[in-house]
Amino acid sequence: MTAAVLTPAQRAAVDAARQARAAYRGGKVAPTAGVAPGMTQANLIALPRDWAWDFLLYAQRNPKPCPVLDVIEAGSHQTVLAEGADVRTDIPLYRVWRDGRLAGEVSDATPLWQEHPDLVSFLIGCSFTFETPLQDAGIEVRHISQGRNVPMYRTNRPCRSAGRLHGELVVSMRPIAAQRVADAVSISGRFPAVHGTPVHIGDPAALGIADLGRPDFGEPVRIDPGEVPVFWACGVTPQAAVMASGVPFAVTHAPGHMFITDVPDSHYHV
Amino acid sequence: MTAAVLTPAQRAAVDAARQARAAYRGGKVAPTAGVAPGMTQANLIALPRDWAWDFLLYAQRNPKPCPVLDVIEAGSHQTVLAEGADVRTDIPLYRVWRDGRLAGEVSDATPLWQEHPDLVSFLIGCSFTFETPLQDAGIEVRHISQGRNVPMYRTNRPCRSAGRLHGELVVSMRPIAAQRVADAVSISGRFPAVHGTPVHIGDPAALGIADLGRPDFGEPVRIDPGEVPVFWACGVTPQAAVMASGVPFAVTHAPGHMFITDVPDSHYHV
Repeated sequence: MTAAVLTPAQRAAVDAARQARAAYRGGKVAPTAGVAPGMTQANLIALPRDWAWDFLLYAQRNPKPCPVLDVIEAGSHQTVLAEGADVRTDIPLYRVWRDGRLAGEVSDATPLWQEHPDLVSFLIGCSFTFETPLQDAGIEVRHISQGRNVPMYRTNRPCRSAGRLHGELVVSMRPIAAQRVADAVSISGRFPAVHGTPVHIGDPAALGIADLGRPDFGEPVRIDPGEVPVFWACGVTPQAAVMASGVPFAVTHAPGHMFITDVPDSHYHV
Repeated sequence: MTAAVLTPAQRAAVDAARQARAAYRGGKVAPTAGVAPGMTQANLIALPRDWAWDFLLYAQRNPKPCPVLDVIEAGSHQTVLAEGADVRTDIPLYRVWRDGRLAGEVSDATPLWQEHPDLVSFLIGCSFTFETPLQDAGIEVRHISQGRNVPMYRTNRPCRSAGRLHGELVVSMRPIAAQRVADAVSISGRFPAVHGTPVHIGDPAALGIADLGRPDFGEPVRIDPGEVPVFWACGVTPQAAVMASGVPFAVTHAPGHMFITDVPDSHYHV
């Protein structure tokens, strides 16, 4: 997947991605927004093989929140998206789900794979990927400038169900100056594999979001006068499906704590 | 999937799509290029449930030739892409595959579903979908102007394998005037769900194509001086995988004889 010929800047970014993964493997825990700029980041959901078909179908039916970048089959922990990476250890923080409920967070998921050796892992595009192009265009990404995790919200929008899986759409929110909203749409729209264009602009109440200051995942950010809340489909949507559907067992990344790949974001530019 | 509000032209096109499907259901056999202009067309592959995971993974790993528009689960013959349509009867011509070999062509696949009630059907984007925008931009689509099926070729490019499925990429070819090739790239690139940008421009030998006058599927078309052969990934690629992998049983559309949906092509415009 990685481009055969990288620019010097891309080589440096790949090095940064590898160093970040090594740090997370060593136990470091931190959100990944702004880490290894220019490298594609990914959401994780790993499910027992018996649930893999339902999930891949759920993703196909809900491509905006669930754009699948790679599927790691049962028995493997490696991905074509990052040479030498181990999906069990190289994410800063994992969530464990049992019977649809959050059962804990761990920084090393190896014991969970020992418990369920048939886990199939799905790596899903993350909107952090287009934050570098947004910043390159002079658009401030507030949660990065505030040094916080991105705010994420459950919505009242149901996804299309698939087999035993159903649930609502989860969105991430970035406040954008009104005169740059169209640019943010255009720029993110060039990256459909990492959620693409926003699903909703302004009017949080219409999405069923009562208070932007109290996100369901991540941290709140400042919204300045003249800014509009812009909502993108979010790769935490599978976690909402795990909860709504009472999935017996799943491992995911913790929201905002992503898998950093070796793939330059330009790879997903259409 | 169909837009809630259609323009008068789109309503007329939906009517044309429904009339075409009804004619095919009634036994009419003909290629679908140029039929119901403006409506999305789709490739079909239906496989026993035991093969569905391998195929959906194959499609995920090879999104350029295999962009999945809908998955119809075992026991159903209906799709969200066309109200009231029946995937067993509404395609002009089907191919039956047994042990990786073409076993026949039929215009009504109902008996095949009776033989294998657990077939899972995949509808895959078709490049016929962006031919209307190409023509709207003044780019001649030769196989339409010649009243022929599009020429398709097997290539020397392996797809990424998935489970038991492997095979080479199949491409469709359209000769484009050299000064319009960039426009054809831009226009088709707006439609990643129906193969998007070309995979190859010029130099058929590099793709392992010895003679453009002898396509592996469809019919040859005239190439005028000053024109360049432009190759797009093709939804016949799953049929090449059926052959290469010796799949025990499959039903597909016959090349060029597509499923015409009720979804305006603008729905897949990014």
